[in-house]
Amino acid sequence: MNIEGKHYTTIWLDEHDPETVKIIDQRSLPFRLVFEDLRTVEEACAAIRDMHVRGAPLIGVAGAFGMYLALLRSPRGREAAALEEAAAALVATRPTAVNLAFAVNKVRSALDRRAAREELIAAALAEAQRLRRDEIDFCRRIGEHGVALIEGIASRKPGETVNVLTHCNAGWLACVDYGTATSPIYLAHDRGVPVHVWVDETRPRNQGARLTAYELGEHGVPHTVIVDNAGGHLMQHGRVDMVIVGSDRTTAAGDVCNKIGTYLKALAAGDNGVPFYAALPSSTIDFSIRDGVKEIEVEERNQDEVKFSEGFHGGAIVSTRVTPERSRAANPGFDVTPARLVTGIITERGIAEASEAGLRKLFPEKSKPAR
Amino acid sequence: MNIEGKHYTTIWLDEHDPETVKIIDQRSLPFRLVFEDLRTVEEACAAIRDMHVRGAPLIGVAGAFGMYLALLRSPRGREAAALEEAAAALVATRPTAVNLAFAVNKVRSALDRRAAREELIAAALAEAQRLRRDEIDFCRRIGEHGVALIEGIASRKPGETVNVLTHCNAGWLACVDYGTATSPIYLAHDRGVPVHVWVDETRPRNQGARLTAYELGEHGVPHTVIVDNAGGHLMQHGRVDMVIVGSDRTTAAGDVCNKIGTYLKALAAGDNGVPFYAALPSSTIDFSIRDGVKEIEVEERNQDEVKFSEGFHGGAIVSTRVTPERSRAANPGFDVTPARLVTGIITERGIAEASEAGLRKLFPEKSKPAR
Repeated sequence: MNIEGKHYTTIWLDEHDPETVKIIDQRSLPFRLVFEDLRTVEEACAAIRDMHVRGAPLIGVAGAFGMYLALLRSPRGREAAALEEAAAALVATRPTAVNLAFAVNKVRSALDRRAAREELIAAALAEAQRLRRDEIDFCRRIGEHGVALIEGIASRKPGETVNVLTHCNAGWLACVDYGTATSPIYLAHDRGVPVHVWVDETRPRNQGARLTAYELGEHGVPHTVIVDNAGGHLMQHGRVDMVIVGSDRTTAAGDVCNKIGTYLKALAAGDNGVPFYAALPSSTIDFSIRDGVKEIEVEERNQDEVKFSEGFHGGAIVSTRVTPERSRAANPGFDVTPARLVTGIITERGIAEASEAGLRKLFPEKSKPAR
Repeated sequence: MNIEGKHYTTIWLDEHDPETVKIIDQRSLPFRLVFEDLRTVEEACAAIRDMHVRGAPLIGVAGAFGMYLALLRSPRGREAAALEEAAAALVATRPTAVNLAFAVNKVRSALDRRAAREELIAAALAEAQRLRRDEIDFCRRIGEHGVALIEGIASRKPGETVNVLTHCNAGWLACVDYGTATSPIYLAHDRGVPVHVWVDETRPRNQGARLTAYELGEHGVPHTVIVDNAGGHLMQHGRVDMVIVGSDRTTAAGDVCNKIGTYLKALAAGDNGVPFYAALPSSTIDFSIRDGVKEIEVEERNQDEVKFSEGFHGGAIVSTRVTPERSRAANPGFDVTPARLVTGIITERGIAEASEAGLRKLFPEKSKPAR
């Protein structure tokens, strides 16, 4: 999508130098726009590990390009060993990121080890580029299915703005382009449907306030940042027409595991008759689990993310303590929204009812047959 | 309650100098403990207006002491005029604070204008002290009624800790002593009931992270700070036994208007079978309104409270921006929790069912008779 009027993606091959991969260093957003060159697998590892890039789809693609860079810089004759070392190093940067391991392995298995060095390099690049295009394509298709929901609301209140609430950043900055939750919003906006987004700031890391607000603002989508406490009140007063969030992991029964706090918004949506959708590529549906609350172990993150808040002050990004020094904090990273609170699941293949039957119907090849 | 092992209240007459009123300047908490002397009504006005003191009960008492200080410093013979000017100035510092106007008028109407100057001053001081004692007494009685709920849970899980979640600061720092929502917690703790508090940080002003965590910590009550997003997840996993919050205004039907985000916690409590209580002095029940969502106009506060976050950094309290510079923010200060989500209302007179019948039964003299 656009930044300062120009189209960007989160990762791309330098058009002038095919040995350089370009990324946006997202740690400085929204305060500064910093681009970064990745020329070695070590630089790719650092970018993933230190969260210059974040978001499951994006770090997968960054891992794939890392494999290409590893081959490119490998000593002649040591290509196979370099690939294995790179794969291990890349996967170790974010050990719980399923998508990263998947993408790295995709590149590895796409290569014919008996091929010549130049062929190997070309094949790795082609596979990384293919994964990148796939991510863009999945997000675009999620948008095409989801935009019908926004257009439907718009048609029922002609001349009025459609208000969408979102939580965290499931935007293009987490993907390569379009985003998941934001993709229907961008499409609606680009088609001239009047849409406005309530952006939950999403403590503790403020991905909503920092990233979602930034990308919507740069693309020109009207939006308003709110604290995570405010959404319920807005829904009680008819100021939210629908909720769209992303999902890190979705169960076969349609339970949605997403950033902490998502469940509270789903409860408020349910209490006020506001439709609540999760938008996600089907690769994040885990057909091996059903009950998300019982079966998904939620990561407990560092308490300092709660005790401190990061912001911009005096020309620099600083971290300020917001609690007493001696107070403990707890920091669960995700929560699970039960399927009963989810109106529908927007995927690249269409919109599924959030249920075992709904997901099975849309993805018959991935579901176990009923016995 | 205690700070550094010593008992404090939020406002008191200096024991060595009866012409000085002492307060804690709460703007510096929890980073520094600063005491302040109020010797004139102008200083009392500034303390209320600039939020050195906050919380409805506390600013009421501060207003009453302000009337005393106004008389004390008034030119001889101008006592009546000084009182009227002081009343107007004090009420204007926080025009929407019903409690402040109530307390100021209490002092004004307690005075016999024909009395001698010294009698007037003594009467004003006596009335301010009486209001202060009443606030302490109301909170203590709220605690005595509410502690039975905590003891009841403790008796059903012997040897285990009772986990209470609270939102914002309805603690002793908002009152004179004990607090409202915290009063049952302090009593339980002081009686040896093992109790632990989940403290919602309560964005945007972080009264939970800053004040509730501070006062619980100083009194020795085990507690853990969480972001406002986390409570639902904790309830889904059985880690919250009850919720107790304060209330700024409660309707005759039992709807509770409290800090923004309270409604989301009530929804999560309801969804997980966790009892949800509001603790409040009956003076905050507005028997003239019924439907809180429809009838209470919620204050829209300055957007910079959302766009910025205040914390401690480099030895100073600094405000850092957490959103893009150009993004707008919305900042509703309160929300309304419908009575259907409230298990009970803890008052100085006992625990009422959150309904018209329940409140009428406990406060028959304040309710309109049924026709």
